[in-house]
Amino acid sequence: MTSVHIAELSWTAYDEKLKRDNPVIILPVGSLEQHGPHSPLATDTIIPQEIGIAVAETIDGLIAPPIAYGYKSMPRTGGGNHFPGTTSLDGDTLVRLTRDILCEFARHGARRLLILDSHYENEMFLIEGIDLALKDLKSWGIDDLRIMKVRYFEFVSEATLATVFPDGFPGWPLEHAGVMTTSVLLHRRPDLVHMDKVPNQKPVIYPPYDLFPVDPKKGTQTGILATAKGATPEKGEILFKEYVAGISAATREAFGLNA
Amino acid sequence: MTSVHIAELSWTAYDEKLKRDNPVIILPVGSLEQHGPHSPLATDTIIPQEIGIAVAETIDGLIAPPIAYGYKSMPRTGGGNHFPGTTSLDGDTLVRLTRDILCEFARHGARRLLILDSHYENEMFLIEGIDLALKDLKSWGIDDLRIMKVRYFEFVSEATLATVFPDGFPGWPLEHAGVMTTSVLLHRRPDLVHMDKVPNQKPVIYPPYDLFPVDPKKGTQTGILATAKGATPEKGEILFKEYVAGISAATREAFGLNA
Amino acid sequence: MTSVHIAELSWTAYDEKLKRDNPVIILPVGSLEQHGPHSPLATDTIIPQEIGIAVAETIDGLIAPPIAYGYKSMPRTGGGNHFPGTTSLDGDTLVRLTRDILCEFARHGARRLLILDSHYENEMFLIEGIDLALKDLKSWGIDDLRIMKVRYFEFVSEATLATVFPDGFPGWPLEHAGVMTTSVLLHRRPDLVHMDKVPNQKPVIYPPYDLFPVDPKKGTQTGILATAKGATPEKGEILFKEYVAGISAATREAFGLNA
Amino acid sequence: MTSVHIAELSWTAYDEKLKRDNPVIILPVGSLEQHGPHSPLATDTIIPQEIGIAVAETIDGLIAPPIAYGYKSMPRTGGGNHFPGTTSLDGDTLVRLTRDILCEFARHGARRLLILDSHYENEMFLIEGIDLALKDLKSWGIDDLRIMKVRYFEFVSEATLATVFPDGFPGWPLEHAGVMTTSVLLHRRPDLVHMDKVPNQKPVIYPPYDLFPVDPKKGTQTGILATAKGATPEKGEILFKEYVAGISAATREAFGLNA
Amino acid sequence: MTSVHIAELSWTAYDEKLKRDNPVIILPVGSLEQHGPHSPLATDTIIPQEIGIAVAETIDGLIAPPIAYGYKSMPRTGGGNHFPGTTSLDGDTLVRLTRDILCEFARHGARRLLILDSHYENEMFLIEGIDLALKDLKSWGIDDLRIMKVRYFEFVSEATLATVFPDGFPGWPLEHAGVMTTSVLLHRRPDLVHMDKVPNQKPVIYPPYDLFPVDPKKGTQTGILATAKGATPEKGEILFKEYVAGISAATREAFGLNA
Amino acid sequence: MTSVHIAELSWTAYDEKLKRDNPVIILPVGSLEQHGPHSPLATDTIIPQEIGIAVAETIDGLIAPPIAYGYKSMPRTGGGNHFPGTTSLDGDTLVRLTRDILCEFARHGARRLLILDSHYENEMFLIEGIDLALKDLKSWGIDDLRIMKVRYFEFVSEATLATVFPDGFPGWPLEHAGVMTTSVLLHRRPDLVHMDKVPNQKPVIYPPYDLFPVDPKKGTQTGILATAKGATPEKGEILFKEYVAGISAATREAFGLNA
Repeated sequence: MTSVHIAELSWTAYDEKLKRDNPVIILPVGSLEQHGPHSPLATDTIIPQEIGIAVAETIDGLIAPPIAYGYKSMPRTGGGNHFPGTTSLDGDTLVRLTRDILCEFARHGARRLLILDSHYENEMFLIEGIDLALKDLKSWGIDDLRIMKVRYFEFVSEATLATVFPDGFPGWPLEHAGVMTTSVLLHRRPDLVHMDKVPNQKPVIYPPYDLFPVDPKKGTQTGILATAKGATPEKGEILFKEYVAGISAATREAFGLNA
Repeated sequence: MTSVHIAELSWTAYDEKLKRDNPVIILPVGSLEQHGPHSPLATDTIIPQEIGIAVAETIDGLIAPPIAYGYKSMPRTGGGNHFPGTTSLDGDTLVRLTRDILCEFARHGARRLLILDSHYENEMFLIEGIDLALKDLKSWGIDDLRIMKVRYFEFVSEATLATVFPDGFPGWPLEHAGVMTTSVLLHRRPDLVHMDKVPNQKPVIYPPYDLFPVDPKKGTQTGILATAKGATPEKGEILFKEYVAGISAATREAFGLNA
Repeated sequence: MTSVHIAELSWTAYDEKLKRDNPVIILPVGSLEQHGPHSPLATDTIIPQEIGIAVAETIDGLIAPPIAYGYKSMPRTGGGNHFPGTTSLDGDTLVRLTRDILCEFARHGARRLLILDSHYENEMFLIEGIDLALKDLKSWGIDDLRIMKVRYFEFVSEATLATVFPDGFPGWPLEHAGVMTTSVLLHRRPDLVHMDKVPNQKPVIYPPYDLFPVDPKKGTQTGILATAKGATPEKGEILFKEYVAGISAATREAFGLNA
Repeated sequence: MTSVHIAELSWTAYDEKLKRDNPVIILPVGSLEQHGPHSPLATDTIIPQEIGIAVAETIDGLIAPPIAYGYKSMPRTGGGNHFPGTTSLDGDTLVRLTRDILCEFARHGARRLLILDSHYENEMFLIEGIDLALKDLKSWGIDDLRIMKVRYFEFVSEATLATVFPDGFPGWPLEHAGVMTTSVLLHRRPDLVHMDKVPNQKPVIYPPYDLFPVDPKKGTQTGILATAKGATPEKGEILFKEYVAGISAATREAFGLNA
Repeated sequence: MTSVHIAELSWTAYDEKLKRDNPVIILPVGSLEQHGPHSPLATDTIIPQEIGIAVAETIDGLIAPPIAYGYKSMPRTGGGNHFPGTTSLDGDTLVRLTRDILCEFARHGARRLLILDSHYENEMFLIEGIDLALKDLKSWGIDDLRIMKVRYFEFVSEATLATVFPDGFPGWPLEHAGVMTTSVLLHRRPDLVHMDKVPNQKPVIYPPYDLFPVDPKKGTQTGILATAKGATPEKGEILFKEYVAGISAATREAFGLNA
Repeated sequence: MTSVHIAELSWTAYDEKLKRDNPVIILPVGSLEQHGPHSPLATDTIIPQEIGIAVAETIDGLIAPPIAYGYKSMPRTGGGNHFPGTTSLDGDTLVRLTRDILCEFARHGARRLLILDSHYENEMFLIEGIDLALKDLKSWGIDDLRIMKVRYFEFVSEATLATVFPDGFPGWPLEHAGVMTTSVLLHRRPDLVHMDKVPNQKPVIYPPYDLFPVDPKKGTQTGILATAKGATPEKGEILFKEYVAGISAATREAFGLNA
């Protein structure tokens, strides 16, 4: 009866694991958000789950059910929240959801948590959820919980960027449903990618400010900001392995684990 | 590019489906909660997902990513929230989560939603989330959304109960991780059930009141309230089919769909 | 200067009682909700107050002013919240109200609280209020408060059900403003019951699901789910005495009091 | 089946009254708060209820169940919230409670509401509740609700003050559980007043600022700010009649009713 | 590198000051609210800032950036919130803002805080913010913070009132943008006052109740309640000096500081 | 009686301006946050105020009192929230504050708002405040408000970066209290900068993840991430002019104003 998925364990198996190993518990956080006509709405949930499973296997950790709905998509990083399919939470909802889940894992006795985020707009609400959880826990006498927060894409190396973008890295803002995420999906879940649907479009250039309410007629009409034409499963494998290796090493470092 | 899973669809495929068919969108709601030493923590999420997929296929609907964390487990219906592994939300968090998701589907243009709940303690918070969503939507000019809320276990027939419990149905309160849920898991996800770990215990009798804070030394020590020894995949199949048929028929009735 | 009503005591009399006896403080919780054309809107507040006074006298406790507005009425248990007169709170309001009152009694030095609930839809919000209060109190260093929660109708015996319903108990869901509550009112507050207005209707049958927004044209039109024609003051007296005796005994048991 | 108490009406009687007369609905708001060793904790709830009933009878209105718990007592107007027995709500709780109740009466069809407040510290939270209710109602298309807010003691005349305080009115801040409220209680509920317990103390003088947390050793030790020795039922009758007449007239003026 | 303004200090200079002197930190709280056609919208922020600076210089304290937006203006004390320019916060927003700022100063090590309020409608929300902050801090182990709350106008003497109003003090309710505030502005910020625009109007008399929503056609049309014609810089100087001296002395008294 | 500062205008002058010109209202948002031993805690409030005034003068707009307290400082962009002097708000507080202020300006009749943000950590909470305000306004029938959100530092050109950093731009994350902000302060408020206190330190390198609670012994000890030694008033003037010109032009573009 072993699994890296907390969801699949019985409470007794989970409890034994916690008491024996003080394992890192990984909480993937994503979104249900348009990722162009070629990739699935759950792209940002699938990728941190895939990475999270591999990291959990590498560091003998556990992975929790993901937060599958994220904060509202912004035009310059996700096309805007007006797209059909994009299903987002109010900031306060995401804050409370994060806080509650963290407090519960701490109650079980877990002391090492890794939040593995994939969706750019989530970050500050996760941080607020972490801060509120730490304050609540402190008020109940728990002050030895450590929480690590990672955005997986920060673990790509310059060398890999050069490999993935032989013509030069166009920059992070354009990478929504772009070459990198599409490549990783092609490597891990090729059944969910439709390369024939990738728009053949030029990068969408936004001005250096935001205007609300978002005008749906402006900005990307396909949902992507730059074409994913260059995506391949090979690039995806390179990226995926780098993410897993980098995050595993960082987690060991942060929590003082042996390799 | 077809799937009943919204998570697997691109936004364009989802949008086309919505505009063409006005499909019922099913939102499974469960919990991460101890279900005895023999069944997985995600039992209450797995079952409504399994049922939801089958209902979606039956009525040409769609299924959304589940709410995988639920409200706090109560002693008389789930053993109590103090168990390791039980990972619950504050009431207000679940209310907001429900409200936000419903409002977003309505924004996409969906008008038929089915909340498929599996965890007893969720009910009132889902209802509050529905009420707040309907009020918000009304204030923004949307008043034609219809939301159906179902607890799958209310669709079992007396005949089936008699089949599943040849010695008499012991009553709903004892059915947490009992014969019915375990049977359904044995039918759909036998890999996650460990019948050798089923406690061979007598029903746990609670007094007709609650006392807080819950004393972990009282009440069930295994997490179950009555033994699941009688669970079989055959019973699970009967139950599962009845749930799917009943909920599909009720959904058609409620939304005026053709069979 | 003695009274079981906290409302009627001076602060000095209340303080003396608290310090001397560590009495159980009873908080009745009800609703302002339609109860058919024959019984008063405050039915669910009057009954737990009447029971609470009698229990307080029995166990030398105190009774607090009631929470007189409850959570939204549901079709299958109360006819639906759309009726005129039904005056309900948002879930979060009821949670906070409960939390605040509990925390204040704890600040006074009370350590034994009994929440005496009468309205089906209140339950989960009371539980959440209790949980939040206990967490707040814990953070301020108070961890020896014990809170008992009771729904009075759970204290009826099978024998009494057989007496009250000579033709068989039709089940709890139909009991909203039905034979039992009407009988208790006839026993305690006959001035508020109008038996000539009791609808002579067949039980209202609901499907095993909820549909929102509630369609006022469906379901009960009178507000009752089954007729209260069989109600009598004699039945009310039997029920009332059983509630008082049962709850008094349970309270003594729960708090370790002598009879 | 008539009563000025909404609590005592059936939903059908209440509905008929609303449709026929568009009556003013009176919501008394008080507190559970120390009022010296001689008067009851519910003083601030009892008085607006007594006045409210008389006003309702005068203007053919209705009276709702009171808000019986108020905002935290302040030293300069109520002695401080640290007293045993004083049982107060967080500001946000009182705001939400007020908002919810107002919105529900508006949903029933009521268009004339009178909030009859008795507890100094409640005022701003009632105002916020009113403002939020009006905004919510506006968003749902209801914009013809009118809400009047009254503090009963503002309706005393200079002539009556001179009668009640033959040696000169000492000022409002000292009137907590003082001559005026005690006199009104002696007139309406003499059973709840214990004149032999009235402290024979000099007025408590506070500096013109507040210091938190409140030091219980400073300020009033009895709970009163000035002695109520001069209270009599005769003064109470004068005051009570003046309150009822003044508020009834003001209500008619505000809502354009005929006398 | 010295300044009484925290805003102008570096963190190192601020930290040194805190550790060396345990200074009183003054938080001015005002509003952005109409103050007649002759004085600026920020009147209620400017005055406590001016007083706060002088008090800080007197008692060797520090002054924080002000809360420049306050609670909603009421007709009887500020003309009503419907005026253009009046820019107000929801009650809960002001409560949270106050709570957060107080908790942060406490985290820095400050133990003496002075809230210097100028806007009548703020008071109860500041008190609630103080109460919540003290509870949060207590839960984190900090229980030695002392918070003083002052409304500057409570520090005027009878003698000064007689000087400022030679024809008799018309009472506080009429003083919104009246003689006293205008005089103080003429003394400290004459550039912002336009005496030629002072309306020459009679006092606006309000009934002893409030009616919502406020009818903009009723009550003051200019924004003032009584004319400020009698305002002079000389009166302003007298008032200002009295406020500064009185508040400085009270602060020393409250916190046990040497003169 | 003219000023670009709303705070300095009377309500009548403000109202006339609004009705005549439909001006852009600029809301500066900053923080009270450590900015090294050499620059003031209010750095992030002073800069957007200075820019805002200049932009208002350029486009004939108005500037509102700033939001002077921001969201919690993060290690990688501000050194961490544990520094003395850093005085931050909970996320929800900043959201509500933003929402309330925006709704009030819309109520006045303003239809063009510019949020001018300076503090990296504020962004998502401002966006949430904007979204909630737009939803509230929509529910009250206002749907023509346009809100622009700008982070001033996004308006620097590559050419200027090359001038300011002759040895190469070290990247945004290091720019907290670095060369650019210090230069702008030297240009606009040289009295508040102490170049002799600028730490002569190497860039602080953070790992690509966050760990909570923040360990104060790790990361920057001075508060800066890279030295501001290269700051000059001349660089500040170049930057300031570029910010003002760029934001003025963008605002005209966004709102369709003539130059």
